[in-house]
Amino acid sequence: MTEEIQRPLDSLNEAKGKTVLVELKGGTQFVGILKAFDIHINIVLDDAQETRGGEVERKLGRVFIRGDTIIMISPSEQ
Amino acid sequence: MTEEIQRPLDSLNEAKGKTVLVELKGGTQFVGILKAFDIHINIVLDDAQETRGGEVERKLGRVFIRGDTIIMISPSEQ
Amino acid sequence: MTEEIQRPLDSLNEAKGKTVLVELKGGTQFVGILKAFDIHINIVLDDAQETRGGEVERKLGRVFIRGDTIIMISPSEQ
Amino acid sequence: MTEEIQRPLDSLNEAKGKTVLVELKGGTQFVGILKAFDIHINIVLDDAQETRGGEVERKLGRVFIRGDTIIMISPSEQ
Amino acid sequence: MTEEIQRPLDSLNEAKGKTVLVELKGGTQFVGILKAFDIHINIVLDDAQETRGGEVERKLGRVFIRGDTIIMISPSEQ
Amino acid sequence: MTEEIQRPLDSLNEAKGKTVLVELKGGTQFVGILKAFDIHINIVLDDAQETRGGEVERKLGRVFIRGDTIIMISPSEQ
Amino acid sequence: MTEEIQRPLDSLNEAKGKTVLVELKGGTQFVGILKAFDIHINIVLDDAQETRGGEVERKLGRVFIRGDTIIMISPSEQ
Repeated sequence: MTEEIQRPLDSLNEAKGKTVLVELKGGTQFVGILKAFDIHINIVLDDAQETRGGEVERKLGRVFIRGDTIIMISPSEQ
Repeated sequence: MTEEIQRPLDSLNEAKGKTVLVELKGGTQFVGILKAFDIHINIVLDDAQETRGGEVERKLGRVFIRGDTIIMISPSEQ
Repeated sequence: MTEEIQRPLDSLNEAKGKTVLVELKGGTQFVGILKAFDIHINIVLDDAQETRGGEVERKLGRVFIRGDTIIMISPSEQ
Repeated sequence: MTEEIQRPLDSLNEAKGKTVLVELKGGTQFVGILKAFDIHINIVLDDAQETRGGEVERKLGRVFIRGDTIIMISPSEQ
Repeated sequence: MTEEIQRPLDSLNEAKGKTVLVELKGGTQFVGILKAFDIHINIVLDDAQETRGGEVERKLGRVFIRGDTIIMISPSEQ
Repeated sequence: MTEEIQRPLDSLNEAKGKTVLVELKGGTQFVGILKAFDIHINIVLDDAQETRGGEVERKLGRVFIRGDTIIMISPSEQ
Repeated sequence: MTEEIQRPLDSLNEAKGKTVLVELKGGTQFVGILKAFDIHINIVLDDAQETRGGEVERKLGRVFIRGDTIIMISPSEQ
């Protein structure tokens, strides 16, 4: 897993096509396949599930998430 | 549904003319037909309904939503 | 009403001179005639009424509203 | 009162030298004579009074108010 | 005192070297001699006192206050 | 430890490859190895653990943390 | 203490190498030796102690503090 990366966005590039955990400022979390991101950290997930307190709240398919609501993104397969 | 996209905004382009679910920071949600968006993620919905806790609060027709209040946008027909 | 629009601000341009509903982050709403807007979504309303929970709180005449407090703008005559 | 204006800032230009009501994000309000404004909506009021819930809290004379705390500005003589 | 000013920052320029009242977003206030300011409304006060609810909490001497926490600045000698 | 640094980001450069403590606005903390950062203070940690109130909540491996949620970063080996 | 300063950042330049008190938006405070700062008011402190309500919570050594969480910075030796 621990490939060397130069810049923070490199880690998102590596995570493309993989399942990631995304935590938002309001406390909700999404798990889904990272399809795309940009420099504002706007992202698109496929097969996304919204979870809160560890339980699945909604299955949403594709979601666009606005970057400024994101706290952290972590690949769940490492 | 899972067309390949390069950038996050591509997913919004694909969703144009389709019904989307939009979640705002304050907890309210809108369901409506995505008519337009820009790089600030300002969007316009037609036939928009405001929902809270799963219930329709208001039918609003056309609405302009300011991008910086948006958490996520998900096409509801996938 | 559903003219085709290309960009989100086009919808505000169409709404000029018409009565709009404006929802602010703090929960207050204004109803008034949209006179002007700019790219920051700063707007000016005439014959503005501030409402909260559906009741008119204040009649204010002309108001300048700063864009970054706005959640959404919806024409009320559609 | 309802002169035609092209841009939102035109309405502030018209209000110069007149008494305006200014509402801030924290819920406080100021009433005073609008002396100056800039594109950030930073403003200066003379003979300013701070009010909360309709009651005068403080008489402050001249005040500089930072634009990003402002919700709306309304001329009180229309 | 009410010299004519053209731009909001002119009022801060006039207040240089005088005692000002500064109100911050969190509800705290500072009283001190305005020594410097910049376009972000970052300011420096000398002989600064922090007050809350009208009582002096701390005497701090020189303080640098970051502009984006400031609600308003008012000269206390007018 | 106390090498001389010229600019704040120099301290992050020195901390690269070392274990750091990262405190976020919402009160959560991460401990992990600093792999990368950029001028927005977006960072990537490896072997990251999320802690709250001193207890480990989650082991997350690699995490990308968005800069605008960060309060402070401190090297834990000094 | 009261050297003449032209711009707010001059006061931070003077405080370099001295012990400063730093107050953050969330209510926490740091005391430490100011080593570096930049135009975003990102700062680095050495020998930093985090305090809350006047009591030392943690001794942290070197800390990088992100500028946008800072309310004020005051030299404690004047």
